[in-house]
Amino acid sequence: MRERKFWGWGYSDELLTDEEDKNIEQRILNNFSLSEVETIPIPKAKDIELHKSKISPPSSLQNLLSSDHLERLNHSYGKSFPDLARAMLGLFPNPPDLIAFPNNQDDIVSILDWADQNNIAVIPYGGGSSVCGGVETDVGDTYSGVISLDLRNLNQVLEIDKESRAARIQAGILGPALEEELKKSNLTLRHFPQSFEHSTLGGWIATRSGGHFATLYTHIDDFVESTTMVTPKGVIESRRLPGSGAGPSPDRIVIGSEGVLGIITEAWMRLQERPQFRASCPVLFDDYEKALKATRLISQSALFPSNCRLLDAKEALFNGAGDGSKHLLILSFESADHELDTWLNRALEIVSDVGGQYEVPREEKQDAHKSGASGTWRNSFIRAPYYREASVRRGIIQDTFETSITWDKGYKFIECLKENVSKAIQEITGKETTVTCRLTHTYPDGLAPYFSYTAFATPSTMIDVWKEIKLVTNEICIAEGGTVTHHHAVGRDHRVRGYDLQRPEGFKNMLSAAKKAVDPQSILNPGVLFDPENKDIKNWMS
Amino acid sequence: MRERKFWGWGYSDELLTDEEDKNIEQRILNNFSLSEVETIPIPKAKDIELHKSKISPPSSLQNLLSSDHLERLNHSYGKSFPDLARAMLGLFPNPPDLIAFPNNQDDIVSILDWADQNNIAVIPYGGGSSVCGGVETDVGDTYSGVISLDLRNLNQVLEIDKESRAARIQAGILGPALEEELKKSNLTLRHFPQSFEHSTLGGWIATRSGGHFATLYTHIDDFVESTTMVTPKGVIESRRLPGSGAGPSPDRIVIGSEGVLGIITEAWMRLQERPQFRASCPVLFDDYEKALKATRLISQSALFPSNCRLLDAKEALFNGAGDGSKHLLILSFESADHELDTWLNRALEIVSDVGGQYEVPREEKQDAHKSGASGTWRNSFIRAPYYREASVRRGIIQDTFETSITWDKGYKFIECLKENVSKAIQEITGKETTVTCRLTHTYPDGLAPYFSYTAFATPSTMIDVWKEIKLVTNEICIAEGGTVTHHHAVGRDHRVRGYDLQRPEGFKNMLSAAKKAVDPQSILNPGVLFDPENKDIKNWMS
Repeated sequence: MRERKFWGWGYSDELLTDEEDKNIEQRILNNFSLSEVETIPIPKAKDIELHKSKISPPSSLQNLLSSDHLERLNHSYGKSFPDLARAMLGLFPNPPDLIAFPNNQDDIVSILDWADQNNIAVIPYGGGSSVCGGVETDVGDTYSGVISLDLRNLNQVLEIDKESRAARIQAGILGPALEEELKKSNLTLRHFPQSFEHSTLGGWIATRSGGHFATLYTHIDDFVESTTMVTPKGVIESRRLPGSGAGPSPDRIVIGSEGVLGIITEAWMRLQERPQFRASCPVLFDDYEKALKATRLISQSALFPSNCRLLDAKEALFNGAGDGSKHLLILSFESADHELDTWLNRALEIVSDVGGQYEVPREEKQDAHKSGASGTWRNSFIRAPYYREASVRRGIIQDTFETSITWDKGYKFIECLKENVSKAIQEITGKETTVTCRLTHTYPDGLAPYFSYTAFATPSTMIDVWKEIKLVTNEICIAEGGTVTHHHAVGRDHRVRGYDLQRPEGFKNMLSAAKKAVDPQSILNPGVLFDPENKDIKNWMS
Repeated sequence: MRERKFWGWGYSDELLTDEEDKNIEQRILNNFSLSEVETIPIPKAKDIELHKSKISPPSSLQNLLSSDHLERLNHSYGKSFPDLARAMLGLFPNPPDLIAFPNNQDDIVSILDWADQNNIAVIPYGGGSSVCGGVETDVGDTYSGVISLDLRNLNQVLEIDKESRAARIQAGILGPALEEELKKSNLTLRHFPQSFEHSTLGGWIATRSGGHFATLYTHIDDFVESTTMVTPKGVIESRRLPGSGAGPSPDRIVIGSEGVLGIITEAWMRLQERPQFRASCPVLFDDYEKALKATRLISQSALFPSNCRLLDAKEALFNGAGDGSKHLLILSFESADHELDTWLNRALEIVSDVGGQYEVPREEKQDAHKSGASGTWRNSFIRAPYYREASVRRGIIQDTFETSITWDKGYKFIECLKENVSKAIQEITGKETTVTCRLTHTYPDGLAPYFSYTAFATPSTMIDVWKEIKLVTNEICIAEGGTVTHHHAVGRDHRVRGYDLQRPEGFKNMLSAAKKAVDPQSILNPGVLFDPENKDIKNWMS
């Protein structure tokens, strides 16, 4: 296994180059008008002390459970800003006592049996890319111990049904391995979240992951044909069906359950043929409200572009995809079946009618999505998680938050969030900042805006400052009618002043009762989504 | 209020003409080689005796509850074959004691409070079009009484958001009234189940209704933006969002809950602009396997036809849309935004490649879907529920069952169902029959076949014969890997040897626990989906 950084994104051998690091430092100095900035060193695993494991595995499970020091570090946190910050500072007060590496579903049944009998909390762990406290092992003192259950060995494509374009896939497979395997059959799941390299199928299903594409088939929810989930009270396997009206969907309670109901072990997933045809065109707008309108009209046209990503002028500038004077709409179509001229031409007619500008004749080539403004954006998108570590080392908070809203409120909502979060950050940090926005997904009835900001702090203040900002953003998203998360999941970080208010109380009661039916001891991911009644959990944000 | 038939489909003033009735009789005589057939008269309400209501309303609810004789008849059953048969025979052993007609959500809260305190079962009733025992008032003896709660007075479109193309709509509105109201804003829900005239928004949501269109946006599930549901433990209202990844979807447990969790009172629904462009072409096939393949390729092309309905040769013949020698694929496209030549032309290329035949030049007109083979089919589709009453009067079972399956099993599954159900019917009835098939919906990963049959029985045997056939079809659908229902819902009739086996046991336990959290006395639609543990319910099929 290639070793992953316990303190940052990606593999341990994928460090930023000195040049990249210096560039980011320079940007920080310029951004906050500083002459110098404190930089803390990258921590070394051997310098970090962890408390002794409180539990030891029974002999029957010895081969499946590890208390390896580096694994305990790696499984303490996900990859949110405060996760990286705490790791960079060497703060690991609540590591898992043990990490489980089951090799199959039966192993998981045995591990859950043991944990259930011994009051041990179990945190499901896929790629560990959670940015909302979804895999954190801080479960309080009412458990005798905590296990991080890593699904990395359940990493196979078990069966491919080419006729139905579907495959039975194990939950622990990472994005690249999955796509490599499907490619052999000219198929693709076509689900590319930003975390793709370091996230798993099971994680995507558990968190209702959103893919890279802007419309139609992009959410993992729509790709799930059936699921298998191990709970402390047995295995729940749904029937493979293209559609069904037989009661509430059994899969839809698994999808988004974030590990509180069971461990997803495998799923039949709907696939697509690999696209052969592409058409793409960047469109510029002087006026943001018009740009939003154009995006709405495209979303309501049933043309279903694969990309329809609107970057506001500053977001485009910060991503090297513009000079900051115009808003950029990246418009792309993909198909495995047909040429897309008719689709793109009609889309361009629609955007022109509301002031969109594009080059005539437009550039037509197979790899258009990898060149020009679209390409610059694409590279920046993939590289972004890596750049964060340079900021974290300097106490600089580079973070994002994402939400969704119906079109009627869209423009005011985005303006309100940008303004109020900027203001709040200025009040909290004493320094000006710019909150920029892009749309990650658009729907016929609404949009999903994604906000980025960089806030000033120092290595010693960054965690508290981040927390303050996070609570404000949770609060504003909810107060203005949005959701506290559109595709990053709830975890622990989105609960306080967020999900706890958004979720209908009666639904919480139903979900909590459903959990008790399959996890009566509340051993599964306690504190995520809600606090189990029979255990004492403290959310670190409250 | 226009009076509805308590013994058949539609309004009391919409009788079959004598000519229609005679035509159907002649068809029956021919079909089963009979020289004459017993015909029972249409029952009269005044001739039917009902047991005295076991409960009386408290004075505070007197205006909302009725024990009117005709209403009790009308609310005893849905519109399945055995419902019509029992009504035609005047068999009403378990009518509701009272019918509730709440005027608003507060009324529903009050009625549920009273019912909850007095151990009274409550059966939600929308348009009463259930064909699976979803609204039947037979709840056994462990309740002190049973109310049918009719939502007819919650029938308003409360709010329209034209920008997001969405509307807040009360659950009791019928299809035609809803569309009439939306038409004023050039919008449509575009959800047209066969029951459209006599079914309601709330019923569609509660049963995961499937619309008339074959691909993409047709299921009610996808149109729901948010829901409001009254439970005995309070109101659950979800947030209006175009998309969300905040935990399992609160709406997806409401959708398909068939009244066992609460009474859906209103919902924000996603709408579409009314289509202006249409393109349609009937395609003929000599070979059914090739026809299925063509349908699959279209379903996987991302062209998203509004209709892609494959009728096997005999189904086409019986619907007057063919001579019985060829299989008919009705292929149509609709759009509010663009001309559809490119779409239809590409689809015709695909079907030609696998042997589909169509006329060149194809007929192009605005109302193509209302003329030719497509039009004949359309009229037959709308009129079908009315024709049934002429059969029921003669003891002839004219019924359908529907399911879904992935493409890999598709062809064999359809052949197996046709053959085995025909055989079973012959064994049960002693007379040959033909089971025909059409596809109602197609998906990239599978298809939804819908089977029709006519079986011989007499007025005195028809209920028992139907039950035997139903149990066989439930059983075969499940054994062959399908679902016991794709869009007719579960109710009571699909449970025995069907849903009870299909649904994962752990999911049942979660759903049952969720119900207890909001309906601890199990007053809501007992016996539908599952039997509550704390009450004694006997499924009439077992």
